[in-house]
Amino acid sequence: MNTHQIQKPYLLMIGDMDDPGNAKTAFGLRDWAAEACIGQFRFTEKAVDLDLPDMTPGLAAVAGAKTLIVGIAPPGGQLPETWHAFLEGALKAGLDLAAGLHQRLSTIPALAECATALGRKIHDVRHYDARLAVGSGIRRAGKRLLTVGTDCALGKKYAALAIAKAMTAEGMKADFRATGQTGILISGQGIAVDAVVADFISGAAEALSPANEPDHWDIIEGQGSLFHPAYAGVSLGLLHGSQPDALVLCHDPSRKSLDSFPHMPVPRLEDAIAAHLSAARLTSPGVRFVGISLNTSAMTDEAAGETLAKSQACLKLPCVDPMRTGVDPIVEELKTFG
Amino acid sequence: MNTHQIQKPYLLMIGDMDDPGNAKTAFGLRDWAAEACIGQFRFTEKAVDLDLPDMTPGLAAVAGAKTLIVGIAPPGGQLPETWHAFLEGALKAGLDLAAGLHQRLSTIPALAECATALGRKIHDVRHYDARLAVGSGIRRAGKRLLTVGTDCALGKKYAALAIAKAMTAEGMKADFRATGQTGILISGQGIAVDAVVADFISGAAEALSPANEPDHWDIIEGQGSLFHPAYAGVSLGLLHGSQPDALVLCHDPSRKSLDSFPHMPVPRLEDAIAAHLSAARLTSPGVRFVGISLNTSAMTDEAAGETLAKSQACLKLPCVDPMRTGVDPIVEELKTFG
Repeated sequence: MNTHQIQKPYLLMIGDMDDPGNAKTAFGLRDWAAEACIGQFRFTEKAVDLDLPDMTPGLAAVAGAKTLIVGIAPPGGQLPETWHAFLEGALKAGLDLAAGLHQRLSTIPALAECATALGRKIHDVRHYDARLAVGSGIRRAGKRLLTVGTDCALGKKYAALAIAKAMTAEGMKADFRATGQTGILISGQGIAVDAVVADFISGAAEALSPANEPDHWDIIEGQGSLFHPAYAGVSLGLLHGSQPDALVLCHDPSRKSLDSFPHMPVPRLEDAIAAHLSAARLTSPGVRFVGISLNTSAMTDEAAGETLAKSQACLKLPCVDPMRTGVDPIVEELKTFG
Repeated sequence: MNTHQIQKPYLLMIGDMDDPGNAKTAFGLRDWAAEACIGQFRFTEKAVDLDLPDMTPGLAAVAGAKTLIVGIAPPGGQLPETWHAFLEGALKAGLDLAAGLHQRLSTIPALAECATALGRKIHDVRHYDARLAVGSGIRRAGKRLLTVGTDCALGKKYAALAIAKAMTAEGMKADFRATGQTGILISGQGIAVDAVVADFISGAAEALSPANEPDHWDIIEGQGSLFHPAYAGVSLGLLHGSQPDALVLCHDPSRKSLDSFPHMPVPRLEDAIAAHLSAARLTSPGVRFVGISLNTSAMTDEAAGETLAKSQACLKLPCVDPMRTGVDPIVEELKTFG
């Protein structure tokens, strides 16, 4: 498969980062790829604690780790220079490296040279340089679900992860397909679709959810929003390339305008549903929505329950909050597909 | 302005290319940037003849040329190695270089070194590496028209060029804004929007049609089609970033399926109009169509006339073929904008 392929298990590098807000990648990995995280690598006890065993790269390699993940997002996107020697040490200890930073580890000369000399891999998962084909739009086998949204950063990745996990637990064939850097580190593979050359957005989506068995589901992480003035092109290419049989609309009821775009209103759910179906039918004529995933994290239990019930009655679709209610009603809906 | 900026006038390099089909770029420049083309540079009289004075780079520089344009598209996209020395000679004669090839002239070491040493520029207009901002969606001053299409390669560039030319001839303030390689060479500036990183499509469109005087029109070359399974993401990002006040729908009535995508039907014009208006309103609530541009090149005069009349009656919009009827009815429509 023509995507990043990162070997598990992982050692999560925290270094000296003491602000948990900058260690979201590490927390996401611990929560969603727990079985793949065998330890944390910290320079000091004051650093963020993931509640994983502390290990050096050397010990982690002995314990079976294959890849060191840079688990933090430094302010400014540049890794502190003091980390370079530790990363080189990890390569020498036998580990590959992976990071989701704007700065590419592979452009740090000492790391690039060491990796080449030792035959190790460096995965800069926010970037994608390998060759892609343009999208074809030709129907392919297997089933696909895509999470879409009324905005960025409101739970499309979590909804997809939760659905894939619940399906697997039920014995259904399902794979999470990652389209952004954290998702790629969690699943160990994928393509950051917003980082490919524009001509290849839908081609990238086709490459990361290839033809599969008729009863196999790819659960694809959505990106951006069709209603976003900056990112709608990415969202549309991903929608066309994914050829989804099923869509889940992700929404944050507390948001009135787009995140960081106060001049842009959040669309109505009915309008978002209609627009997505209309666009998705180009490559998947039978597509339908199977649920709504609300991010009610800013609400009380009572308010959340009311909002979910009201949305469900209005939209006549299962409404869930993956973190609060789970996603079983959506999984039940998926079982009705032939 | 954060786009390619190519100095005119041009010397068009044909070299030894004897197949006119591979010299479309040169013919496009001769037809649409005639005042900027002061000569052609051919190795032999058997090469394609643009009916321009034959000149060497040295003579062209004396005659005032500023840039040598590679006017051919070699089979395979790679320039013959025998051309490298001639291109280096052009740099030494005082000319910048520009090309719209997949292969970058700037990655040919001898050319890159020579250009750096002499302070000359190399424009690989199919590529765009400079820094862009993501789209903001904030309304900006000035008026903008975008040509959109039911498919690729059916006349969006020619329609935009013809409209900009006719407006200028009428004394209106209008600039053609190029979004593809041939358009960039014609206008001397622009960004190939399908070559930017996907996150920056609408940001690129905002950069190439910046705020302007209230009665100034940017006439923006469209790309791809909202109904294309490979390129719709580019088309949507360009639509949102352009914030068009006016749209022109380009269509080839003889095409039943998308070019090179026989499994994908061409959309109905009514559906294409509705889909574009719905998407464009996100950043330009007052947007409307001002005309239809039909490519009737495969038809007899009589059939073309009938088709234009029928479409105009059906769609209640001015219908033209820029090559056959001119675009005056569209320009008249634009005069009605406040």
